[in-house]
Amino acid sequence: MDAAQEAQNREAFRHAVVNTLERRLFYIPSFKIYRGVAGLYDYGPPGCAVKSNVLAFWRQHFVLEESMLEVDCPCVTPEVVLKASGHVDKFTDLMVKDEKTGTCYRADHLLKDYCKDKLEKDPNLSADKAAELRHVLAVLDDLSSEELGAKIKGYGIMAPDTKNSLSDPYPFNLMFHTSIGPSGVSPGYMRPETAQGIFVNFKDLYYYNGNKLPFAAAQIGQAFRNEISPRQGLLRVREFTLAEIEHFVDPDDKSHPKFSEVSTLEFLMFPREDQVSGRAARRIPIGESVAAGIVNNETLGYFIGRVYLFLTQLGIDKDRLRFRQHLANEMAHYAADCWDAEIECSYGWIECVGIADRSAYDLRAHTDKSGVPLVAHEKFAEPREVEKLIITPVKKELGLAFKGNQKMVVEALEAMGEKEAMELKATLEAKGEAEFRVCTLDKDVTIKTNMVSISKEKKKEHQRVFTPSVIEPSFGIGRIIYCLYEHSFYTRPSRDGDEQLNVFGFLPIVAPIKCTVFPLVQNQQYEEVAKRIARSLTAVGITYKIDITGTSIGKRYARTDELGVPLAITVDSTTSVTIRERDSKQQIRVNVDEVASVVKEFTDSVSTWGDVLWRYPTHSS
Amino acid sequence: MDAAQEAQNREAFRHAVVNTLERRLFYIPSFKIYRGVAGLYDYGPPGCAVKSNVLAFWRQHFVLEESMLEVDCPCVTPEVVLKASGHVDKFTDLMVKDEKTGTCYRADHLLKDYCKDKLEKDPNLSADKAAELRHVLAVLDDLSSEELGAKIKGYGIMAPDTKNSLSDPYPFNLMFHTSIGPSGVSPGYMRPETAQGIFVNFKDLYYYNGNKLPFAAAQIGQAFRNEISPRQGLLRVREFTLAEIEHFVDPDDKSHPKFSEVSTLEFLMFPREDQVSGRAARRIPIGESVAAGIVNNETLGYFIGRVYLFLTQLGIDKDRLRFRQHLANEMAHYAADCWDAEIECSYGWIECVGIADRSAYDLRAHTDKSGVPLVAHEKFAEPREVEKLIITPVKKELGLAFKGNQKMVVEALEAMGEKEAMELKATLEAKGEAEFRVCTLDKDVTIKTNMVSISKEKKKEHQRVFTPSVIEPSFGIGRIIYCLYEHSFYTRPSRDGDEQLNVFGFLPIVAPIKCTVFPLVQNQQYEEVAKRIARSLTAVGITYKIDITGTSIGKRYARTDELGVPLAITVDSTTSVTIRERDSKQQIRVNVDEVASVVKEFTDSVSTWGDVLWRYPTHSS
Repeated sequence: MDAAQEAQNREAFRHAVVNTLERRLFYIPSFKIYRGVAGLYDYGPPGCAVKSNVLAFWRQHFVLEESMLEVDCPCVTPEVVLKASGHVDKFTDLMVKDEKTGTCYRADHLLKDYCKDKLEKDPNLSADKAAELRHVLAVLDDLSSEELGAKIKGYGIMAPDTKNSLSDPYPFNLMFHTSIGPSGVSPGYMRPETAQGIFVNFKDLYYYNGNKLPFAAAQIGQAFRNEISPRQGLLRVREFTLAEIEHFVDPDDKSHPKFSEVSTLEFLMFPREDQVSGRAARRIPIGESVAAGIVNNETLGYFIGRVYLFLTQLGIDKDRLRFRQHLANEMAHYAADCWDAEIECSYGWIECVGIADRSAYDLRAHTDKSGVPLVAHEKFAEPREVEKLIITPVKKELGLAFKGNQKMVVEALEAMGEKEAMELKATLEAKGEAEFRVCTLDKDVTIKTNMVSISKEKKKEHQRVFTPSVIEPSFGIGRIIYCLYEHSFYTRPSRDGDEQLNVFGFLPIVAPIKCTVFPLVQNQQYEEVAKRIARSLTAVGITYKIDITGTSIGKRYARTDELGVPLAITVDSTTSVTIRERDSKQQIRVNVDEVASVVKEFTDSVSTWGDVLWRYPTHSS
Repeated sequence: MDAAQEAQNREAFRHAVVNTLERRLFYIPSFKIYRGVAGLYDYGPPGCAVKSNVLAFWRQHFVLEESMLEVDCPCVTPEVVLKASGHVDKFTDLMVKDEKTGTCYRADHLLKDYCKDKLEKDPNLSADKAAELRHVLAVLDDLSSEELGAKIKGYGIMAPDTKNSLSDPYPFNLMFHTSIGPSGVSPGYMRPETAQGIFVNFKDLYYYNGNKLPFAAAQIGQAFRNEISPRQGLLRVREFTLAEIEHFVDPDDKSHPKFSEVSTLEFLMFPREDQVSGRAARRIPIGESVAAGIVNNETLGYFIGRVYLFLTQLGIDKDRLRFRQHLANEMAHYAADCWDAEIECSYGWIECVGIADRSAYDLRAHTDKSGVPLVAHEKFAEPREVEKLIITPVKKELGLAFKGNQKMVVEALEAMGEKEAMELKATLEAKGEAEFRVCTLDKDVTIKTNMVSISKEKKKEHQRVFTPSVIEPSFGIGRIIYCLYEHSFYTRPSRDGDEQLNVFGFLPIVAPIKCTVFPLVQNQQYEEVAKRIARSLTAVGITYKIDITGTSIGKRYARTDELGVPLAITVDSTTSVTIRERDSKQQIRVNVDEVASVVKEFTDSVSTWGDVLWRYPTHSS
């Protein structure tokens, strides 16, 4: 199959999935009667149930299993917090404007579209030009505002809707801006992530945890990004649910006590080197990845393993899930290592979970801005002797030498790290003087032996004070759900073979409705049995849909398959009923009184369908 | 006890509760390290767990029990939606500004504080003046902007912080404003309630429900109100979780099939008449309230009963819960009836749930604004003969008589309701002409017999098209949780009697952590048993806290009581353990292998402590 055909098949598949999702109200474009708003979607009844199931499983799998401290912070966030985190200054995309109409576009999108379009559709494209465009696509994310602007001008790219010329690119902050309180002097934003709410609470959470590391805090909540021009349907939206974990750990000890529980798991890993050298992702046991130093540390590896289990237990196809390491240019300068769980769907490989070792960056940033030390303490069992660097500038001599610049030189000397100081000491001892860089003066000065004394002294310390590192798995719940839809969807011919029927093959844990109940024919006796069963299902907390319309059984099955309902209960007698499993279409006969418990053990995943099938007589219709 | 003493006790009680809540991280003032933001709070770990338990029970009690259609819509809302709902124009509070510093205050708060202060603290207040101030307090909510301003000026009220003079009151819109997309031309707001997301989806939801009424949709989510100056701690906040139900019903039939299940419930009702005539709230069975017409209809009554069950099953004291009917001046003009579930706490009686019959208002408003008819259909089994009003203006005659105003007169004639039209017809037949009001001309015109023909014709109709009424129970989750804290809190003397210990007597369904596990003494064997028990608890989905510090058992009990943990498991042998119930302090001995199932049946409320106590040997320490 060639690339064009494959792309077409993917489009057709996506069309079928999205069409079913929208028709059955898994989601609804928000404010549809007012022609909607790009990038905003509602979860309709089945979508809302799927989301609630995914979140409940997330809580069970992560929060409960690891005794995480769950918190719930507001979306409205004062500016100071997002100044400290860097979002006010750096959370931007580059934008260009149609110079006549003012319509806004993402600069990189326009360039990307241009290159792809040329490559796919221009038969006269020279080999050189094609290579150039491919290169542009490869480095697209690294281009500066000026470079992007030059390419757009250079290729003569115009506004797609009007063919008007475009402005130079400029940064647009992606946060929704608002104002807190009536005075108009307290700017605020709708949070772009939930993580900051955890960081600013570090001190209290550390105390709550008995002043012990490691521990993790978690938060599920809404986050907001005012996208310039949202594309890719449900994958790029302006408001979404994040589930984030911040695991705080001693930077000197990133081992994990439960790592052995995941170390033999084997799945697709896509390390940085393999990407750069053009190799494909390959299956590596996570234990091996950590041992080989491909993954930076055990705790990061542990979470990669847990994320793999989470996603596959929800029903994500393990062959279409890979963990891709960030390239050097993708990763924030402070990050120690970063991996994305990417899921393949009709849009390509989509980042659904980011798992990053963000080192001490976030806690340090808030410590600096707030003045409140967000640090941990390690009390030593007995005092320890430590070597301390002592730098004593001789102010008199420095004053004589540098006059008005004395203060800057003193500060620069005091700010030296251990390595730099010991090198300076060695040079002074060897040569009597040394060139020394003073950044605040933007020049080198000459330091002589009598101007500073540098030594190491032994001191007794009772504790160590340090900023913890944070390892952050961050889940885009909406993206995971969308990929789950694609991975669960299939079609099969109807009984007459005259049409293709849609099925969502959801696992019971995800299914929005666990079973349907319908009387085979419309009569009062059967309806009463159906209602009795419905009550018993409610009592054990199982969601069901009751259908007492006179529609044919075949049609009713087709309807419930399209909603991904695992079991259908047909009331065809007053004492026992038929239970049909969605994927196998096998049927068993079960006494009315046992129905709720059979459904519950299957949908709670206590029994498989195989287990149940074995215990009850099968039914052939 | 006099009023002052009572107020003081209330303050002291609140202080004890809030102090415990904050110290144990049930909640945390948001962004505390940056000195916080008024009206924003985080739920810390135990608070977050309580919230999640309350919401899970809400889903079980309402959504699952009534097969409601749950949806999940974005917080970011375009202006047009909130124009239609009336929020852009009317969701305001009156504000005054310190004329020098610009500090903002709620006008009614300042007037209220002034009156209360005078009444409580001015010994020279005349009886007349006191009566006047009491009257002001009584009508406070009804005062117009001008009246409020006149009182503030009249009493010489100054800015409380600076004693500067104050501006005239003016309306401040309480919605957080933002802008959607990069262009700056699409204003939006953070939703002030979740209900609008349901109303705009009515058409799709009605279809999803098989085009049948009644049905209910539900939504849990964040809502936002940019309060002028938040007071009352956790009760008046700028961001909060709402859980709302919109039950759509035929306006001609507001009966409810399950009303008989609640009709004998008896609880404190506070009808409008009793409030006006100064009587106290009294216990009335809800069946009787509906039968006597105190509550407008069965569906409204059904929800009042279900709300009563919900709140009391969570642990709200039934003697401190009342349903208060809105007074005529409190109720929106379109509402058919409205009741608030009010819970008494240290702040007084607090509105926690509103239960309103909003008639067809919301669906009509969105129909008008969007042009999409949000209506329901009742298909008749056989066509029905109905009388239709036919109004035919005779345009030629009207043109001669009214010239340029003809169009307005024609429209006004066509817009007549049945009653008005039949009256006009009668007058024309009797007198040959009639005075007729044309609102668009703002005057009466004379209509003669030859200018319009009015008749009733019989027509066959196959269906009835109508706008459903909506009955809306709306839950302020944060307020319910705060009242639950107050109703659950008590103190008892420590064993030595030297201090008072705090206890949150949460029911198992609400308790943030279901049990604690601790080894009696620090040794490896006991620790391993504790970990084995912990794993078995996780497997059955029970939240626990494990405490392996060497702290005394008494201290550890005190700590867990303060978190409202119902059961404490002490590992004091390798085969069996002690389980202690929080409120009775009774202890039983249970085999290690049975612990998880005993804890589960108690915390799932399958068994009471009494049931469990009976089956296991008691343990005396």
